[in-house]
Amino acid sequence: MPGTGADETSRSDRVPAGITDMQPRRWMPPQDAISADELEAIHLASLQVLEEIGLDVLDAEARAILVAAGAEASAGTPRIRFDRGLVLDAVRHAPATFTMHARNPARHVRFGGDWLAFAVMGSAPNCSDLERGRRPGTRADFQDLVRLGQAFDVLHLSGGYPVEPIDLHPRIRHLDATADFIRLTDKVFPVYSLGAERNRDGIEMVRIARGIDTATLEREPSIMTIINSSSPLRLDAPMAQGIIEMARHNQVVVMTPFTLAGAMAPVTLAGALVEQNAEALAGIALAQIVRPGAPVMYGGFTSNVDMKSGAPAFGTPEYMKATLIGGQLARRYAIPYRSSNTCAANAVDAQAAYESVFSLWSVVMGGASFVKHAAGWMEGGLTCSFEKLVLDVELLEIVAGLLATGGTPTPPRVGLAARTDGPDLVRRAQRIWKETLAAYQPPPLDPAIAEELDAFIARRKEAGGVRTDY
Amino acid sequence: MPGTGADETSRSDRVPAGITDMQPRRWMPPQDAISADELEAIHLASLQVLEEIGLDVLDAEARAILVAAGAEASAGTPRIRFDRGLVLDAVRHAPATFTMHARNPARHVRFGGDWLAFAVMGSAPNCSDLERGRRPGTRADFQDLVRLGQAFDVLHLSGGYPVEPIDLHPRIRHLDATADFIRLTDKVFPVYSLGAERNRDGIEMVRIARGIDTATLEREPSIMTIINSSSPLRLDAPMAQGIIEMARHNQVVVMTPFTLAGAMAPVTLAGALVEQNAEALAGIALAQIVRPGAPVMYGGFTSNVDMKSGAPAFGTPEYMKATLIGGQLARRYAIPYRSSNTCAANAVDAQAAYESVFSLWSVVMGGASFVKHAAGWMEGGLTCSFEKLVLDVELLEIVAGLLATGGTPTPPRVGLAARTDGPDLVRRAQRIWKETLAAYQPPPLDPAIAEELDAFIARRKEAGGVRTDY
Repeated sequence: MPGTGADETSRSDRVPAGITDMQPRRWMPPQDAISADELEAIHLASLQVLEEIGLDVLDAEARAILVAAGAEASAGTPRIRFDRGLVLDAVRHAPATFTMHARNPARHVRFGGDWLAFAVMGSAPNCSDLERGRRPGTRADFQDLVRLGQAFDVLHLSGGYPVEPIDLHPRIRHLDATADFIRLTDKVFPVYSLGAERNRDGIEMVRIARGIDTATLEREPSIMTIINSSSPLRLDAPMAQGIIEMARHNQVVVMTPFTLAGAMAPVTLAGALVEQNAEALAGIALAQIVRPGAPVMYGGFTSNVDMKSGAPAFGTPEYMKATLIGGQLARRYAIPYRSSNTCAANAVDAQAAYESVFSLWSVVMGGASFVKHAAGWMEGGLTCSFEKLVLDVELLEIVAGLLATGGTPTPPRVGLAARTDGPDLVRRAQRIWKETLAAYQPPPLDPAIAEELDAFIARRKEAGGVRTDY
Repeated sequence: MPGTGADETSRSDRVPAGITDMQPRRWMPPQDAISADELEAIHLASLQVLEEIGLDVLDAEARAILVAAGAEASAGTPRIRFDRGLVLDAVRHAPATFTMHARNPARHVRFGGDWLAFAVMGSAPNCSDLERGRRPGTRADFQDLVRLGQAFDVLHLSGGYPVEPIDLHPRIRHLDATADFIRLTDKVFPVYSLGAERNRDGIEMVRIARGIDTATLEREPSIMTIINSSSPLRLDAPMAQGIIEMARHNQVVVMTPFTLAGAMAPVTLAGALVEQNAEALAGIALAQIVRPGAPVMYGGFTSNVDMKSGAPAFGTPEYMKATLIGGQLARRYAIPYRSSNTCAANAVDAQAAYESVFSLWSVVMGGASFVKHAAGWMEGGLTCSFEKLVLDVELLEIVAGLLATGGTPTPPRVGLAARTDGPDLVRRAQRIWKETLAAYQPPPLDPAIAEELDAFIARRKEAGGVRTDY
């Protein structure tokens, strides 16, 4: 089947050593939803926004870095204005493809080109399942969802805490949560940008987990962070620090403005996309100024709000078009594109399913590399559902099967539709996650690494963890 | 947005007079799932099948027509073998685009090019709704489903009886059902090929309904029939008669082999597609031999069976790939492509929704023109569900919204997800179809036409209807 044309080398040439064929690859080209002229208009308008309005950068070090690179500060305010040449020269250094390294080389993940990577849902405040209902997240739920992420091969990494473990104190939450990621899964995982100390802890812990030195870690990106600008046109201090800290160590920055047409962005899709693009370019430029060539992704999360309820709309034509145009923008800058598998539904019902498949349709058509929230997302992101996670695994396996080409056998599926143990899909999904958790085995971890990890955590806890006054 | 490249004239040039912009148009090109070489291999293998094995044609007139055109009969058997030149010369006459004429010109439907047309489900033996459960079809249910098909603008035509009205005697069923179509909807509708008399009655009734003479009707295709070959490699007598009768009057033949890999077709998808293509080409060739240039469609309905249950699989990767490759074959012959919106689900649940959206995804990617079974299909075709029909209207409206381009405002939606009158989607769907039926008004019909129609039906009933010994 035809390649995307984006990369002219043959498929086999592009598979880095150690990567098995667990990731699906897109054989159909991405689809352009708007013309080259319309795309250029969004691009130029976003550069004009950065030049004339600028961005509030709430971190002093970030402002100093940007000013040293030629950006213009405004005395007495955090506002930074960016010359378009400065932005474009910086963005040009971002790599078009890169590999993230897991502690198990068979779990390395490739971003860019025609590769797709699916991540467990991230950052839900609540989780839910059929038996126990909807509840705020705990470490026990966090761990179970990480185990499920490990168990299903179609899930390639974690993109965030699947649910927030609120019974872990914020000062030490990132230490215990990162340790859980390392012990319970051998796949790639993230660190939150909530102050540079947390980023540094995450980077150090993944170095320990992989059993490598700092120089190797800086050659081999192994941990990612998601950066959300505070639209409109603001980059908060912890987010700016996250960009700096991660880029400095050549780790992955996923720059994702969250722009809702009709809420924190203009009511038209084009206006919201101009804002998305301005914020994304500014964040990516900062990363590239800190370290030219540092791995970044262009994240799109633009949708519209339901004009009756004010709630974000997902899986709608507007959402799909925003996803497609986001992909066109990312391709314009030759940066891997991050998108999501979202829905607004409150139950694991027909609405949850169709909104998710429409999302996935636009993800594949839009040429996304990294699909965050690929499994578990419910209620516009307020809940990670155990049963929805299983439903999404089924959906992702169908997408992977569609993308399996001549040489690749269609991967086996979780079999949610084919199971005969009950007429009710949600109940079948419940049985599947329960059976999967019962059969779960943690991936082997070198005892010396486990010990070094424990010692690091003990030392950091003894020092009081991190400040929580962000 | 870019056109498909299939038709180089501008969009406005191609809109025939009287057609409003009710049909969505594809702005993204169809996606090729296999290479040109692989496609050619299927094409050549199907021609070889027609040359060396041939097709059992169970109607004497059809055999005579084919033999007169150069096909080879086999003494004492119904087997007809087709020289590839004969097949390809005939198929070449099929038009790449055509318009079907409704009695209301605003409801004309365009097939081919980048147009899409969505039809209400056809030929379900059962119907179901939340209140009354699943039951064999009656005329009352048939009428209600035709009314719903009339009410939703995103449904452009009927592709069959939405449910079989079994309380109408088979001798006169087509007369009353066709009269119901004419009275309850001003959109295009079909006639079944169950013997040439029924085709002739349908053609005459649509002529009366449109208030035109026979010559005009022969210039303006106004009624369609679905032809299913009896795989493997057999064309039953009523089906052959349907092709002859409809083509003779320049009415629309939708030639759709139903080939299930692992059931009545080889277990590999490629093998099943060779069989599909052989049967489709033979039927289309017969139509073109009868009347070169008669409007036809290339129908694809190839899937695999679930190897555990033996039931057909829908909305699976195999189904999607078969749909895509069927589209490639139809484009190879430049004939409008007919596909479907199918699912295997037994309830209006997440499975019904995701299988349907995956079907629609392959329909759009596959470049289909005519989407049969677009609304209401359940249980692999055994049931037309009132609530699923509403769910499908929502799905089709999302697809139409995705396909709405710059100049076209996003069409309004039925609002299944946005409604606040209950948390349960199926119950919301129930309220929507009940409200829609309550608000239904039959489209105006000229009293003189109604009278002529009644007289025709009375005369035909007096004559005893049609034979039922097919």
